[in-house]
Amino acid sequence: MDATPIVVASNRGPVVLARTNGSIEQRRGVGGLVTAVGGALLGRDATWIAAAITDVDREEAAAGRGAFDVDLHLGAGARGIVHVHLADLDPAAYDLYYNEFSNRTLWFLHHDLWDSPRTPAFGAGGAEAWDAYRAVNERFAATIAEAAPRGSPVLPQDYHLSLVPALLRERRPDLQQAFFWHIPFSSPDNYRVLPDAWGAALLEGMLGADIVGFHTQRWARNFTDCCRELLGARVRGKTISHEHGTTRVGVYPIGVNIDNLSEEAARAEVARARASIDDVVGDRTLILRVDRTELSKNILRGFIAYEMLLEQRPDLHERIIHLAFLTPSRHGVPEYEEYVQACKIRAAAINERFGTPSWQPLVVEIEDDFPRTLAAYQRYDVLVVNPVYDGMNLVAREGPCLNERDGVLVLSRNAGAAAELAPAALIVNPFDPAGTAAAIERSLAMDRGERQAMAARLRPLARGTSPARWLGTQLKDLSRLRDG
Amino acid sequence: MDATPIVVASNRGPVVLARTNGSIEQRRGVGGLVTAVGGALLGRDATWIAAAITDVDREEAAAGRGAFDVDLHLGAGARGIVHVHLADLDPAAYDLYYNEFSNRTLWFLHHDLWDSPRTPAFGAGGAEAWDAYRAVNERFAATIAEAAPRGSPVLPQDYHLSLVPALLRERRPDLQQAFFWHIPFSSPDNYRVLPDAWGAALLEGMLGADIVGFHTQRWARNFTDCCRELLGARVRGKTISHEHGTTRVGVYPIGVNIDNLSEEAARAEVARARASIDDVVGDRTLILRVDRTELSKNILRGFIAYEMLLEQRPDLHERIIHLAFLTPSRHGVPEYEEYVQACKIRAAAINERFGTPSWQPLVVEIEDDFPRTLAAYQRYDVLVVNPVYDGMNLVAREGPCLNERDGVLVLSRNAGAAAELAPAALIVNPFDPAGTAAAIERSLAMDRGERQAMAARLRPLARGTSPARWLGTQLKDLSRLRDG
Repeated sequence: MDATPIVVASNRGPVVLARTNGSIEQRRGVGGLVTAVGGALLGRDATWIAAAITDVDREEAAAGRGAFDVDLHLGAGARGIVHVHLADLDPAAYDLYYNEFSNRTLWFLHHDLWDSPRTPAFGAGGAEAWDAYRAVNERFAATIAEAAPRGSPVLPQDYHLSLVPALLRERRPDLQQAFFWHIPFSSPDNYRVLPDAWGAALLEGMLGADIVGFHTQRWARNFTDCCRELLGARVRGKTISHEHGTTRVGVYPIGVNIDNLSEEAARAEVARARASIDDVVGDRTLILRVDRTELSKNILRGFIAYEMLLEQRPDLHERIIHLAFLTPSRHGVPEYEEYVQACKIRAAAINERFGTPSWQPLVVEIEDDFPRTLAAYQRYDVLVVNPVYDGMNLVAREGPCLNERDGVLVLSRNAGAAAELAPAALIVNPFDPAGTAAAIERSLAMDRGERQAMAARLRPLARGTSPARWLGTQLKDLSRLRDG
Repeated sequence: MDATPIVVASNRGPVVLARTNGSIEQRRGVGGLVTAVGGALLGRDATWIAAAITDVDREEAAAGRGAFDVDLHLGAGARGIVHVHLADLDPAAYDLYYNEFSNRTLWFLHHDLWDSPRTPAFGAGGAEAWDAYRAVNERFAATIAEAAPRGSPVLPQDYHLSLVPALLRERRPDLQQAFFWHIPFSSPDNYRVLPDAWGAALLEGMLGADIVGFHTQRWARNFTDCCRELLGARVRGKTISHEHGTTRVGVYPIGVNIDNLSEEAARAEVARARASIDDVVGDRTLILRVDRTELSKNILRGFIAYEMLLEQRPDLHERIIHLAFLTPSRHGVPEYEEYVQACKIRAAAINERFGTPSWQPLVVEIEDDFPRTLAAYQRYDVLVVNPVYDGMNLVAREGPCLNERDGVLVLSRNAGAAAELAPAALIVNPFDPAGTAAAIERSLAMDRGERQAMAARLRPLARGTSPARWLGTQLKDLSRLRDG
């Protein structure tokens, strides 16, 4: 065990609290960040600052019981204790900070999801959301400042907490910080869609950290370009100089926690799900996609590509099947409801057009069924991962780690994963369904030897750097900065 | 008169042909390019290659009567003869080339008008439109190759004709070419939304010219960045090296044909229109916008900004009025119909919310009435020009040239005009209605002296370089390249 205590901060912690029969219960949180960061914390003395999200979270935090220990189980017998501190937040402010500003402003900005003639239009509501975002970031910084042991490195995570580094540095200049940004970072032209004052404040907030980390060189470069063009910051290599000192920009691509993933895949539910998938697929060639129902995942163009393939290649009919496993996400946001509806309509039209009594060409399942996803990873022949933009994309990594059929990965060049996986994948322009259809077609035409060779090259690249090492490297770089 | 004959090529020529009572009649074309380029050609021996657009154009071209002289009248007694050659085009191909590829693909791309989770989605129709675009560009190149006198400089214009330079160079290597791109040019990240093969072919097409010209440094830089990142072209200063030689990138901002504009403004219709505007405005402060009904013009956010101003400043009610003069454009394109509808609904809501029996806060007029526009230019106190993106924007230039009240220009930083006019305008982020409202508010608060000083600085900047000189500089640079 590494003796230095560390502090992680993220919007969502490893658990949320719920009340069952009057007693408080910890429920495992969802989301890739929690799995990744959780895995990285095992064997360390870790404190985790997170937002009070549920009503029970808030009640407990307000009653002074917002700090408690959590026993993390992360596969392969790995477990460990983390000390959780919930940041007590006003529910109305939390809603604006989380839904409006983080997820409808920053997420849309960095994934280029706006319909620019119409959105965004920051009116009075925009300023309110910005104020809430600042207030919640202040609260986070205050909670960290209170909880962090002297000299312990702090690792604030992701776009929800952009302002935390600078706010925390003011309160606790003794703490080193490595801030990690998990999503794409947009180029200056797109970034400047934000009102100038917000855009500058967000960058300055991030620059409060000693290190700002990204999954790829591309996002790191966009960030430094923004700092240079918007703040006039001086950039030399990886170092950004600004009025409060210097910040090192680092590239730390996160990989798969293979022990955890393998253990999950070995469970009986996965075998059962596999049998059910085999029933659906039979001896057909399986083209798989696995995504949250998220605008940036580009599900619609994926379906259009599949439709083009069926149109151009009647000889493939009945012999292939496309499964789309979609995990519900951001329910109740109008843009998402409409998008999912459009995907369903397109899927129905494809089945209507090409289906036969013995063959449904496209099967869409919208549910959260992780064992079924893992079973599908084992079985696919082609995995389509075509996001418009994506910070990393863990489907493109986890799928190849578990696949048992030398499946081919068709991968968007705008997924962070492409930076490492490109040599062993078919890279596509996500905006180009015809090109995507051509890549799927190519994958179907590859002979066994070619597929084997490609899959063999892909597996180690897909596994990549374990979350524990990913985090360890950041900590090492922090201590180098301090000592050097 | 400059003796060297020159050849201009653009989608739309100076006239289209129509039949009245059995005889062929020339009708003056619309659009800023025709006025600008037409003005530049006076006093030269000029040939103008344009598409056969109307049925009569096509009939005449097919009957071998597609070449004829046009007597251009461009104000202040300026007139001149140009030799027009119509490129005979298949109507179906023209439709795909013009509407689908030029206006719904390239225009949307370079003005960032796509709704990226959904559009573009280049399916089978996309490939058809691309084929048509190539075919029409081939036809243009062939028509130019036939019509151009030996050694005469050729000036292909704008995004409709991107492929012409390379195609013409193959056919007529004796001809020097200065290609001019009138709209914005997108950054590489956005440019790469196009299918790769198209993106590369378009850049290679443009690089067939000796000079590629833009209105601002910003668009020129985006173009060279695209050539470097997509084609791997070598860029040194203003020179791009590629497999067919070198191309010089130039910045030639076009200004106003002041003689023509002043003569137009002196007409009786303008005086009549002015009286009618004075009736509507009275002694209120006039906030004006003049635009085509075009997605990139950002009319909706302009209205939202005005609404925010009315909301925040009840003391201004009844004392200000906003006129929006919108020229109909791209009728029948669904995106445009919907957008205009949304603008009307927003305008009605603003009037409903703030209007009184004696005051309609926002008056929207959708019609093509140039005299009325010129009269409004004379009368405005604040001119709002807030496009999302715009190659140059001539409203921002013509307005200040004619204004008689030391009006203030509120100008988008994403309009090409901002490169020159920024020191004498209030520059806004077009995506930020709150910021735009604040700029309008500031313009209303300026005292007479400040307004006078600003307007005095603005006028010469707004007039800028006359079209004749704009074109002359390009020709001079061409001959320097040849001789040097």
